Amino acid sequence: MSDRSLETVADDEAPEFGELSPPDRTLMGPGPSEVHPRVLRGMSTPLVGHLDPSFVEIMNEVQELLRYTFRTDNQWTIPVSGTGSASMEAAIGNLVEPGDTMLVPTNGYFGGRMASMAERAGGEVVEVDAPWGEPLDPADVEAAFDEHQPDVFGFVHAETSTGVLQPGVPELTDIAHAHDAYVIADCVTSLGGVEMRVDEWDVDVAYSGPQKCLSCPPGASPLTLNDRAMDKVLDREEQPRSWYLDLSLLEGYWGDERAYHHTAPITNVYAIREALRLVAEEGIENRWERHRVVAGDLKDGLQELGLEMNAPDEYWLPSLNAVRVPDGVDDGAVIDYLLEEYDLEIASGLGDLAGEIWRIGCMGYSARPQNVEFLLAVLEEALAEQGFNG
Amino acid sequence: MSDRSLETVADDEAPEFGELSPPDRTLMGPGPSEVHPRVLRGMSTPLVGHLDPSFVEIMNEVQELLRYTFRTDNQWTIPVSGTGSASMEAAIGNLVEPGDTMLVPTNGYFGGRMASMAERAGGEVVEVDAPWGEPLDPADVEAAFDEHQPDVFGFVHAETSTGVLQPGVPELTDIAHAHDAYVIADCVTSLGGVEMRVDEWDVDVAYSGPQKCLSCPPGASPLTLNDRAMDKVLDREEQPRSWYLDLSLLEGYWGDERAYHHTAPITNVYAIREALRLVAEEGIENRWERHRVVAGDLKDGLQELGLEMNAPDEYWLPSLNAVRVPDGVDDGAVIDYLLEEYDLEIASGLGDLAGEIWRIGCMGYSARPQNVEFLLAVLEEALAEQGFNG
Repeated sequence: MSDRSLETVADDEAPEFGELSPPDRTLMGPGPSEVHPRVLRGMSTPLVGHLDPSFVEIMNEVQELLRYTFRTDNQWTIPVSGTGSASMEAAIGNLVEPGDTMLVPTNGYFGGRMASMAERAGGEVVEVDAPWGEPLDPADVEAAFDEHQPDVFGFVHAETSTGVLQPGVPELTDIAHAHDAYVIADCVTSLGGVEMRVDEWDVDVAYSGPQKCLSCPPGASPLTLNDRAMDKVLDREEQPRSWYLDLSLLEGYWGDERAYHHTAPITNVYAIREALRLVAEEGIENRWERHRVVAGDLKDGLQELGLEMNAPDEYWLPSLNAVRVPDGVDDGAVIDYLLEEYDLEIASGLGDLAGEIWRIGCMGYSARPQNVEFLLAVLEEALAEQGFNG
Repeated sequence: MSDRSLETVADDEAPEFGELSPPDRTLMGPGPSEVHPRVLRGMSTPLVGHLDPSFVEIMNEVQELLRYTFRTDNQWTIPVSGTGSASMEAAIGNLVEPGDTMLVPTNGYFGGRMASMAERAGGEVVEVDAPWGEPLDPADVEAAFDEHQPDVFGFVHAETSTGVLQPGVPELTDIAHAHDAYVIADCVTSLGGVEMRVDEWDVDVAYSGPQKCLSCPPGASPLTLNDRAMDKVLDREEQPRSWYLDLSLLEGYWGDERAYHHTAPITNVYAIREALRLVAEEGIENRWERHRVVAGDLKDGLQELGLEMNAPDEYWLPSLNAVRVPDGVDDGAVIDYLLEEYDLEIASGLGDLAGEIWRIGCMGYSARPQNVEFLLAVLEEALAEQGFNG
């Protein structure tokens, strides 16, 4: 540390940016949803160390609250230190071993992400097809199992890209288990908003993101594995390809030992504790019911505006309402109008459905009647601007 | 979603936990450090979407502030969506390709972590030795290069496990580049507290954690790569083994395109923006100087108590003061006494130095005279409780 080097950049100018002042948005897109004031307040709590005895207690409480929310008794229930895709890769990257075959769906954006993660884990990927906007047919899943004998089967419980809910989960898990395979459920857009029963429905591994129906800022993401799945992870011959997401190492931190692995995102753990406490206070089934009722009003209102839902009623996903863009309407212009005139966020379609749908979230703290009424009123105005009057 | 299933767990009891109320700790351990009130306040800011135009602007600002702090013009400078080990694995997992050889140090805990990540990336690991508590000797690095011709060389600029600063970084990077290798610097405990000049010192890749000298809650972690390193990443034959940390995909989000990859940890990005704004306001060189001065007082005070520093003065790491446990003193009892009586966190040794040292951080917002005076006073008391009076 020489004086010389201190001088060389002495005239260097530091960037000057003003106070953080993002616009005050109403968030009705595919996530993040709005965050409850109590959770925001929790995030401004001063930190304790990640090995502090008081933090260990907080970790225990978060795990218990996550078990309640997932409807599971799985010991192996933790928040992964990253956003939803990190818990997704923790699930796939640990369960899929080199040489394993994973069966993934093609009926939405996130099946493709599953495939990419499974390949990177050294697995072979096979597919079960359904069109974008439709759920998987159990008969097709059965046929795919008979043809490929996969070791792991992943499905998306709530497809954020299409607004489709996968019904009949127990039927899917029965097929997989009859073929001695493990089931991974993507619950990113269902956990805490749409009925999901990990134990009763015999799901081996489930993951989610915090910024959807849990209305928690992204950064610590729910994951649960039953003993059968965790045994596979702990019996691997080759170590998982990510150190950061290696569940056998995380077991040391979140299990009985509480040994240092990596520094947990302490504030995000504070936040998810408060978000999950709100789930427990409301009651998980009341929460599912609230999403059905409030999103049901949204769906009815959209149809009254002359719009058509992308998914038929039997696959309707309350937390993510995919609605078709009418002929002659510019989807991007409507999105921009709502954002610029009313600070309201909704989103466009992804992948096969780009330009064809809007995606309107109704998740967690955003799933409130005032948000729905506001959205319907200003969406009607935005559509009228485009010459569409239902 | 049948009424039946709603009834089956109707009597299920939701966990009841009280308001989040962790103890108010003074954090003088190896991290997290204390967080500035402005950063805590920033974290309670309501969220915007991760693709919101206003968030794109915030991303740009964070990148510019990170460049300032790293002393670099690297375009490829981002916060990785995870804690420090995630930015570490992003660096190693992207740069090291299957078949590459990575040279890692053995003089501390984190060289071992580098080795594990490089192996999982498909690399072969070779080592350059130095005892725990000493820096690498350039002659040994040169010899290791001649013997192994590694493709990538990783070193730890500030070893959190030993309290040792690696001097002479330009000499190390010269050796590596003379052998056509890439250099990865672990700056977890130096960035923002100890002089580090990525461009001037010709470091190809550097990563850090936010919860050390930046005094920011963990969850979004600094990473920078120069064009030469990014070219290697983008020219890989085989895709990186993590989808979540794949820099070629992250390039779509943090680069010009701003395309969706994963949901960024929005609140953590808010937080690091404010933490880095505090760095810019103070001035990076003033900040290095503050750490030297405040931690210098700490070091002097520790020596006045009759304690011995683990590292000689020429390798002293201001941000992490490793001090030897005197004979006859129980290191854990002192740690517990400080935590229980005074809500003050310091830490024990790791690995080879477990039981032999205490690790006393002096980082970021924790690097204040009041913290140092408080620590010295109560440490003296704790030592006296153990019968040690210098």
